[in-house]
Amino acid sequence: MPEKHFNLLKTSSGARAGELYTPHGTVPTPVFMPVGSQATVKTLTPREIKDIGFNMVLANTYHLYLRPGIDVIEKMGGLHRFMAWDSAVLTDSGGYQVFSLAPLCKITDEGVTFRSHIDGSEHFLTPELAVKYQESLGADIMMVLDECTAYGDSQEKVRRAMDRTHRWAERCLKTQKRKDQALYAIVQGGMFPELRRQSVEYLTALNFPGYAIGGLSVGEPKETTFAMVEETSALLPVEKPRYLMGVGSPEDIVEAVARGIDIFDSALPTRVARNGALFTGKGRINIRKATYRRMEKPLDPDCDCYTCRTFSTAYLSHLFRSDELLGLRLATVHNLRFIANLMGKIRNSILEGTFDAFREDFLSSYQTTNEQVRVEQKGRWLRSSRRR
Amino acid sequence: MPEKHFNLLKTSSGARAGELYTPHGTVPTPVFMPVGSQATVKTLTPREIKDIGFNMVLANTYHLYLRPGIDVIEKMGGLHRFMAWDSAVLTDSGGYQVFSLAPLCKITDEGVTFRSHIDGSEHFLTPELAVKYQESLGADIMMVLDECTAYGDSQEKVRRAMDRTHRWAERCLKTQKRKDQALYAIVQGGMFPELRRQSVEYLTALNFPGYAIGGLSVGEPKETTFAMVEETSALLPVEKPRYLMGVGSPEDIVEAVARGIDIFDSALPTRVARNGALFTGKGRINIRKATYRRMEKPLDPDCDCYTCRTFSTAYLSHLFRSDELLGLRLATVHNLRFIANLMGKIRNSILEGTFDAFREDFLSSYQTTNEQVRVEQKGRWLRSSRRR
Repeated sequence: MPEKHFNLLKTSSGARAGELYTPHGTVPTPVFMPVGSQATVKTLTPREIKDIGFNMVLANTYHLYLRPGIDVIEKMGGLHRFMAWDSAVLTDSGGYQVFSLAPLCKITDEGVTFRSHIDGSEHFLTPELAVKYQESLGADIMMVLDECTAYGDSQEKVRRAMDRTHRWAERCLKTQKRKDQALYAIVQGGMFPELRRQSVEYLTALNFPGYAIGGLSVGEPKETTFAMVEETSALLPVEKPRYLMGVGSPEDIVEAVARGIDIFDSALPTRVARNGALFTGKGRINIRKATYRRMEKPLDPDCDCYTCRTFSTAYLSHLFRSDELLGLRLATVHNLRFIANLMGKIRNSILEGTFDAFREDFLSSYQTTNEQVRVEQKGRWLRSSRRR
Repeated sequence: MPEKHFNLLKTSSGARAGELYTPHGTVPTPVFMPVGSQATVKTLTPREIKDIGFNMVLANTYHLYLRPGIDVIEKMGGLHRFMAWDSAVLTDSGGYQVFSLAPLCKITDEGVTFRSHIDGSEHFLTPELAVKYQESLGADIMMVLDECTAYGDSQEKVRRAMDRTHRWAERCLKTQKRKDQALYAIVQGGMFPELRRQSVEYLTALNFPGYAIGGLSVGEPKETTFAMVEETSALLPVEKPRYLMGVGSPEDIVEAVARGIDIFDSALPTRVARNGALFTGKGRINIRKATYRRMEKPLDPDCDCYTCRTFSTAYLSHLFRSDELLGLRLATVHNLRFIANLMGKIRNSILEGTFDAFREDFLSSYQTTNEQVRVEQKGRWLRSSRRR
């Protein structure tokens, strides 16, 4: 880890602007990470991701361990070289995927036995292995292995999982060899404020360089999500970065920034793009709707992305109606650029001390119509079953 | 049509180097056109197609008529603006697709009634409408409507279709309004040299600015294809461009150039790319083979495409094994760049008068192993069922 991993520059009504320092460059915060589970942000080249305005992406240890294998990526010179990405990478530990994607076999204090969702083969993952794999991948930020619980689990069950997560976090810290990588802890505790408090207390005593809030956006009402974020965030040390895992719709990002979150990841912007749901200043639209078939103007005339600068809405509509792969690309470019622009505007408003006004302004114009809700619910369902 | 549409610059052992003049720029020949049936070369942006080295693409009137509709494209300012492509476009008349893709209803001298392969709706296409649609699209080069026959059809059947094709060609010429577009005739006559001769005689008397050879690569042995190409090509006027429809494997292009062909189109390079079959100087390889899983060097170390300059073979292998869309893109970029480079080398060798040596050299190193044949056969099957 570099001398200093995070610098908080400015606070505005609870929202924070700062900088993360990584072996692959400085990352301005609040930051959103596009998701590249399999060492690729779906449909895009690394050059495009950079051009769109991102300096950090997320990759998944679980996926890469199963395919192509950690050893293959190590042989290719690490994850950055493998995917030709020279900016920062954060890797998830694999914990969440083991609990959500893979048929789970057994969990003990030692670790977790699971079956591959690809070929059914049996594998064993421990906190020590999770760190070892992430060191081999060469992630700039690594995550501890944690035990995940579901929405609706009893307090006793959530407490036991949390306690194990704490013991595992300690083992991760202890086994870490490379010191240029930042290892983040994950606060658990479900929807129980008292457990969240205990989790923060335990983990902050271990002095991690960063803290994630896990176990949210798993099916609970949105008010509960944000109540938990607010509760937990307020307890975390001011000088450490805070990462809300798996949250990434425009409106949720704004709300979470207001509660002191610095780092986000989510497959939502890219996944809903491939479903034809596109972000605009007035909310999401569904490009498959008949109304867009003959629209000459760009999808979002205020947008500066390649898609909006180059093509009519009618062309984008045609590509989706014709199942053309270029449509998925152009939609992904647009949604990611929308998020990149949003993060820039959020950060500027914090630095200028006007975040509250920005938030109010954004949320009042970014509306969710019925049409959009249908698309969103599909996304939400996927998200709750796939990402914490 | 510009004053002069084609200029033959040099001939070398039967191979021809020249230039096509179109309202959207000069196109050096021999030229290969990537196929963008639905107003998009699958997976790529127009900027990429240009960067890879192409100045002309093919689009299909049949597909665009059904979706999004000729009127939509006209409203968007024509095909060039619709797909954001400012170089040349050749449109197929829709004849071949009507005979190969759509459930055919009835063919009379007046025209052809067919059902949409998308929704089963009934449509009527005439030579006059085919030209009208292509004029509305704004193609630089248009094709006449022709009647296609299958391999194995009797000489009598082929003759009747050819005679109708001739009458239709005449009607196309007569109905043409815009004079900036070049309208090409299509020589038919199946595998019968005498019919091919008659077809050339009839159509050249009408003095079209260019001539296509249709009805080949429909399932006949390759020797037959090239015998027919040789036979027909020799009869065509030296000063007019010759277009061999639906041929585009590297080895077939070289063989056809040797027989005096100037223009090619084929979905093969892009389609086999998406199947994982990639061109190299030594022949095609199948990226899904286990041997590529850990290969650090680029797919083709001699290749200057974005894919080979940026990624290891192992990464490309990983993308295909993980069903990642980026794999389809990177493979398409590579195969098209291979073809663009091939066309450049062919043209230079003709201009230098060394085409024969180039041809011998290329064909002796570009070998088809068993592995490649399997992929090719799949492609060939698709091609014979989809493109003439």
